[in-house]
Amino acid sequence: MPAPAALTRADAEALDRANPLASLRSRFVGLGASAYLMGNSLGPLPAATEARLARFVRDEWGRERVDGWSRWLDLPTRVGDRLGALLGAGAGQVVVGDSTSVQLYKLLVAALDARPDAGAVALADGEFPTDRYVVAGVAAARGLAVRTVATDGPDGPVTPAAVEATCADGAVAVVVASLVRFRTGARADLAAVTAAAHRHGALALWDVSHAAGSVPVALDAAEVDLAVGCTYKYLNAGPGAPAFAYRAQRHAALHQPIHGWFGQADQFAMGDDYAPHDDARQLVVGTPPVAGLLAVDEGLALHEEAGADRTNAVGRSLMALVTTAAQAALVPLGVAVATPLDAERRGQHLALRHPDAAGLVAGLAADGIVADHRAPDVIRLAAAPLHTRFVDLWDAVESLRRQLTS
Amino acid sequence: MPAPAALTRADAEALDRANPLASLRSRFVGLGASAYLMGNSLGPLPAATEARLARFVRDEWGRERVDGWSRWLDLPTRVGDRLGALLGAGAGQVVVGDSTSVQLYKLLVAALDARPDAGAVALADGEFPTDRYVVAGVAAARGLAVRTVATDGPDGPVTPAAVEATCADGAVAVVVASLVRFRTGARADLAAVTAAAHRHGALALWDVSHAAGSVPVALDAAEVDLAVGCTYKYLNAGPGAPAFAYRAQRHAALHQPIHGWFGQADQFAMGDDYAPHDDARQLVVGTPPVAGLLAVDEGLALHEEAGADRTNAVGRSLMALVTTAAQAALVPLGVAVATPLDAERRGQHLALRHPDAAGLVAGLAADGIVADHRAPDVIRLAAAPLHTRFVDLWDAVESLRRQLTS
Repeated sequence: MPAPAALTRADAEALDRANPLASLRSRFVGLGASAYLMGNSLGPLPAATEARLARFVRDEWGRERVDGWSRWLDLPTRVGDRLGALLGAGAGQVVVGDSTSVQLYKLLVAALDARPDAGAVALADGEFPTDRYVVAGVAAARGLAVRTVATDGPDGPVTPAAVEATCADGAVAVVVASLVRFRTGARADLAAVTAAAHRHGALALWDVSHAAGSVPVALDAAEVDLAVGCTYKYLNAGPGAPAFAYRAQRHAALHQPIHGWFGQADQFAMGDDYAPHDDARQLVVGTPPVAGLLAVDEGLALHEEAGADRTNAVGRSLMALVTTAAQAALVPLGVAVATPLDAERRGQHLALRHPDAAGLVAGLAADGIVADHRAPDVIRLAAAPLHTRFVDLWDAVESLRRQLTS
Repeated sequence: MPAPAALTRADAEALDRANPLASLRSRFVGLGASAYLMGNSLGPLPAATEARLARFVRDEWGRERVDGWSRWLDLPTRVGDRLGALLGAGAGQVVVGDSTSVQLYKLLVAALDARPDAGAVALADGEFPTDRYVVAGVAAARGLAVRTVATDGPDGPVTPAAVEATCADGAVAVVVASLVRFRTGARADLAAVTAAAHRHGALALWDVSHAAGSVPVALDAAEVDLAVGCTYKYLNAGPGAPAFAYRAQRHAALHQPIHGWFGQADQFAMGDDYAPHDDARQLVVGTPPVAGLLAVDEGLALHEEAGADRTNAVGRSLMALVTTAAQAALVPLGVAVATPLDAERRGQHLALRHPDAAGLVAGLAADGIVADHRAPDVIRLAAAPLHTRFVDLWDAVESLRRQLTS
């Protein structure tokens, strides 16, 4: 990587030429020459997914009809296991279905049922709204306090020390936090924070929505207890695609509270009593959203083709470029970098702060660059390893520089 | 309708020629000459839905990407209101999303929160498994008893008298029952049963999965409190399509317990506290399943084109034919009709009982007739007003007759 001052578009072009994942970009529909830097919000459409969904609709639903269920029934766990491999989770611990909010609710209640003596749930400061609302709703219904875990600076990562401080009295049942924060992209130390919770008798329930498919997530190795996340960001499964839930198998006795027939061990015996599977299948509730599950499956195929090592290496390099360029070109013009500079402590989007963030994002759009404004003052530029080009990020920084100097 | 003994295939053909909805059959993919009598399980694919989903994938997700959210955000209520019109529900009371099991859980908890003094929930005898499991799970978690509401005969409809008997002591918070029962197709009197619950201070929570799109459902007129149902049966929205929930607006203060960001009144202000919409939008939780919602929307367009009056008239006539034919041809051969003979007390499938139901359904399949076996001894033949032909039903009865006499 050249020194910041010397970073030119030619440098970015050279990085694109050397990118071992560069050819994957053409596997997405309609990206062409456009700079789509919102893969952290909605991943683009893989061509294989378009074809797979068309086949499903026409050949499976359209022609096989009910017979298709022989192939669809186990999709929540079949796709879940495949996703689990990407998240460092052994088989039988991940299911795909429902929305992230519903999955969070289910696992939160399961965690709280395990600690009837507990008086509180802990939540990272400034979490994504649905995480805050779900936690507050469950806590209020059960008469529990919600404690706020401080972050390392505004919208920074959750730290082990802050978790220790929050849980020191042993009253906290579960710590809920995002691995990668939605505003700043700050990334926590998954294993260290989880261990801090465990030291005080709390479980760790992670929202890995912004991490799945973007940065390494080693759920089993980090001894995570529970996790949820969405599939329509870096997993490219489409708007409203089903979410996922992870429950470490050692917690198989922690049952989520919505006892649906798809969690039943012998589902079609239709027995009198709920007798669920003793693995993650207990987390499945109702009839699975088949089309969405197939879209998740196709998105995972692209990630497998990319390979975790290359995805991580390209991802880091993309983030290094955009961060370096922004520091050199934008910080002198009054822009603040809100994302940690430590590559281990950030995800795959760069957050910039400027009072006229809204105007600047509109200016990016005028230059054909799709980026994101978060009120009041944040600009987010996502660097998705599977489809973002180095020049896309360079051009975004250059557009911002031009806007701020014109 | 000719006398039973005289009912011939020519009679069925004549009824098909006179069927005002006959042309709708060609709007479904791949039905051709086949007899698909499982519309009560999974409705066939409308051609318009195939086209709509392809457009959504290619043009909306594929090209508009995040900009599509301006059109997708309000789908849960936009499609919900459209579905509400079919269910006799005024605007602002129906949302589409989640699975039926999750919707049932949400509304059940809302109902129980309204009656903290109550000691029991009442459930119709022999309900569909997921209804039983969800109710039992919630009741156990809250220390409530589950009382069984007797039905009018085995798998018969729930009656007002039985509800009165179950709720007489005023301890029941909510009565949960299916309007049309999944095994026999027995249909309850929606208004009378609801009124019986109300007389004893209980709410009525209906599962209308087998009724929606098949028989009249007048939720507002019947003063129903809460209802849920699925969209992949007679609404033809595809495998795993999202479910729906109805909450009468007079119960707007009854909040479902999963406080997601899509229920928030000012969602993108991302405010600190959960301050939900004061209509059915509170029932929406997470990011909506866009593809599934569009499939529901297209299915509803077909129902609107058919019109409620014609749908109901054709549906009754189909049921009259298959019931009459079965009584004449099959009852003398040891087959029992498990579905009520009163047209007001049944839905849109005929249930037959025979010890060799499994073998008979395999025999139907060998004759190109897709029907359903429910262990141990039930055969179900669904008469979906939008796509089932009179000859399909006649041929099914004739196939069974031949099998039983050969």
